[in-house]
Amino acid sequence: MAPLKSWLEIDSGSHFSLHNLPFGIISTTSTPKPHPAVAIGDQVLDLQIFTEGNGFAALSTIQPHQAVFSRPTLNDFAALGRPMHRVVREYLQTVLLEDGPFPGVLKENTSLRDNALIAQKECHMHLPMHITDYTDFYAGLHHAYNVGVLFRGPQNALQPNYKHLPVGYHGRASSVVVSGTPIRRPNGQILTDPAVKEPILSPCRKLDMELELGCFVCKPSAMGEPVSIKDAPEHLFGVVLMNDWSARDIQAWEYVPLGPFNSKNFGTTISPWVVLIDALEPFASTGLQNDIKPLAYLDERERKSHYTIDLSVELTTDSGNSSTICKTTATNLLFSFPQMLAHHTVGGCPFNVGDLMGSGTISGEGKSGKGCLLEQSENGKVSIRLSDGQERVFLQDGDEVTITGVCGGEEGAYVGFGKCSGKILPAMEIAT
Amino acid sequence: MAPLKSWLEIDSGSHFSLHNLPFGIISTTSTPKPHPAVAIGDQVLDLQIFTEGNGFAALSTIQPHQAVFSRPTLNDFAALGRPMHRVVREYLQTVLLEDGPFPGVLKENTSLRDNALIAQKECHMHLPMHITDYTDFYAGLHHAYNVGVLFRGPQNALQPNYKHLPVGYHGRASSVVVSGTPIRRPNGQILTDPAVKEPILSPCRKLDMELELGCFVCKPSAMGEPVSIKDAPEHLFGVVLMNDWSARDIQAWEYVPLGPFNSKNFGTTISPWVVLIDALEPFASTGLQNDIKPLAYLDERERKSHYTIDLSVELTTDSGNSSTICKTTATNLLFSFPQMLAHHTVGGCPFNVGDLMGSGTISGEGKSGKGCLLEQSENGKVSIRLSDGQERVFLQDGDEVTITGVCGGEEGAYVGFGKCSGKILPAMEIAT
Ligand SMILES: [Ca+2]
Ligand SMILES: [Ca+2]
Ligand SMILES: [Mg+2]
Ligand SMILES: [Mg+2]
Ligand code: NI
Repeated sequence: MAPLKSWLEIDSGSHFSLHNLPFGIISTTSTPKPHPAVAIGDQVLDLQIFTEGNGFAALSTIQPHQAVFSRPTLNDFAALGRPMHRVVREYLQTVLLEDGPFPGVLKENTSLRDNALIAQKECHMHLPMHITDYTDFYAGLHHAYNVGVLFRGPQNALQPNYKHLPVGYHGRASSVVVSGTPIRRPNGQILTDPAVKEPILSPCRKLDMELELGCFVCKPSAMGEPVSIKDAPEHLFGVVLMNDWSARDIQAWEYVPLGPFNSKNFGTTISPWVVLIDALEPFASTGLQNDIKPLAYLDERERKSHYTIDLSVELTTDSGNSSTICKTTATNLLFSFPQMLAHHTVGGCPFNVGDLMGSGTISGEGKSGKGCLLEQSENGKVSIRLSDGQERVFLQDGDEVTITGVCGGEEGAYVGFGKCSGKILPAMEIAT
Repeated sequence: MAPLKSWLEIDSGSHFSLHNLPFGIISTTSTPKPHPAVAIGDQVLDLQIFTEGNGFAALSTIQPHQAVFSRPTLNDFAALGRPMHRVVREYLQTVLLEDGPFPGVLKENTSLRDNALIAQKECHMHLPMHITDYTDFYAGLHHAYNVGVLFRGPQNALQPNYKHLPVGYHGRASSVVVSGTPIRRPNGQILTDPAVKEPILSPCRKLDMELELGCFVCKPSAMGEPVSIKDAPEHLFGVVLMNDWSARDIQAWEYVPLGPFNSKNFGTTISPWVVLIDALEPFASTGLQNDIKPLAYLDERERKSHYTIDLSVELTTDSGNSSTICKTTATNLLFSFPQMLAHHTVGGCPFNVGDLMGSGTISGEGKSGKGCLLEQSENGKVSIRLSDGQERVFLQDGDEVTITGVCGGEEGAYVGFGKCSGKILPAMEIAT
């Protein structure tokens, strides 16, 4: 398929080709209230202004619902359901297409073009969704194995349940922030000597990141009513990059027997643009092969519900120097988002529009594919050499971590996520 | 102190004496939209109607904020802060007081009395708060010890971290429901033989309840900014009874290494009336003595931040017969809600108005004080004999569990919570 060409100038390397059109929430100097937009090249199409300018004139199905484009989050748009996301995205593609059927809507409507097309650098990005509940899974098989080896050795690396169900834990919805938000190093209880079970309160000394995908839910499901594996895809809105910042020393002390808590709730960063499931479909793929047969409620058979997304992690030190510390792909998952949702609801857990599921850390098999520093440094034992000569085992204050993700190999047709980044601020001083 | 006397007739055994005035969300046939009320005796004072009838005429400080009394949750009222809760509650006490200073407001205003005072049995109760995030702690020392003995023996019953920090996990906010909501037995992965790690999908066979208190937060705290133990009480709105329904067999299989998940997210029941912290103050007490000295950020010194609440659990079988299966008091906690909040925020986790914290299962020392069936039946080994001759180790379909809680020993001056109950529905059929 040749790349779709727009009458707008779009850099051929852009993550936001006409094949993408991800949705986000922006504010600008002239429209300071947060509202929806789609990214296109290095610009955005402001959907509030577009709607006010009668941009949806040629799409009657959306007209009763146009108020969703003046809301401060995408939840109401998401709640319209996947068929509506599809027609809106496809309509916007035709509006932006070089020889589209509706040139009067935008291409030849210079006043609307002047108002509704805005440079991305002039937009302030907000959290795209009001996040109602947040769950983080652990479906990155290589990550789970590598971490298991570090703590329990290769024989018992994976827990007995690991391949039977997507292991996950409830996270803290309030702590999810948009890319660019600084992350303060947490204070917490840690052991200075693991043999002496006497904690101190200290700034985290093993601050880490985790390379993940996040997926938003767009269809509610009632308490007591499971979502079948067959229906699950219709419940998924879109995907973002996610960095599940993690305090390894706090986690090691707090996590028995109820799981990670303060080690995970001080901040989780997501990328601002939600790439719709439809935009990802051309890159659909199978994930990792599960060598046990899952129970029927998790059995996807041959469906391709993973995506070939090239992922990378860059670490920028306070010298300004950047090093790529990880490269992998998003197919390194043992369970897919539909499987996660089917499992999450099998006992009747209710879902709301705006719920977020994290994939778990995505690691490839080799050393360069390890999606967190815990794995890369073998829990602090092996230094990672950066391009400016500095070394790291965990994150230092002033470090900035940037995750990128992009699908496709064809110039002008990339479907990318942009950036998911956050910079570490020093810990708050501990009052004594 | 003699009981406060109202011009309203209030049964001397009522949980809702003039000393209490808990807040909740009701709807009625004539006002079907959920809105706030306070409970008084076997009636409620409908705060929306009271406000519309100029009931707050003599309390100027609330007047700019009166819209909070027509909202569908208590969040906006809670957000006004503890000083405002205090003046509103005290004002309503004087309005209802036998020889109060404002007889014209309600006592002698027969049309407002006719409209704003409604029998509780005519009110439909709703979830009192929009629950933004939900965390469940594990601060019931005897419970943690008893469960630890069952799984690890008396030597290692408590984990090394247990007395150093309030252990907790993030729960599922969407699954919190109001008393009276039926609870469907969850399906989930369980092992039929723990030695063979091959799960089946099955209705839970070890369905349990947990006797807890819940506490709502009324003051937001920003990401990165801890709430000190000194400031924490000003962040607490009020307390409810809570039943953290638990699927022990699902939990046993799923919980390594990230904690309970589907075993806890199919339903958590809370009582409908939020008893304000001010109403509990006369019953303030210390909790269990901690034999280790907590770190400074958790050190409450002598403050009494627990409450002497007599708690009981009743099990009603489908025969209609009720048996009291547990009696204990709420002082059986090692950590208080202010300590939980100080710990939860020490690493910077942000809080919103409407966040809920559960205490953890509250068990007394003796057999009759065990706050869940896992403890009472020693994980299914010992039968509990009910008053109708039936026996239980875990819950059966049709069983109804009712938690009650009340403070005070003086007739006419009780501060109670009413009931927190839920009845077990059979599991959904598993599609094959
Ligand atoms: Ca994670
Ligand atoms: Ca619990
Ligand atoms: Mg996190
Ligand atoms: Mg629960
Ligand atoms: Ni919410």
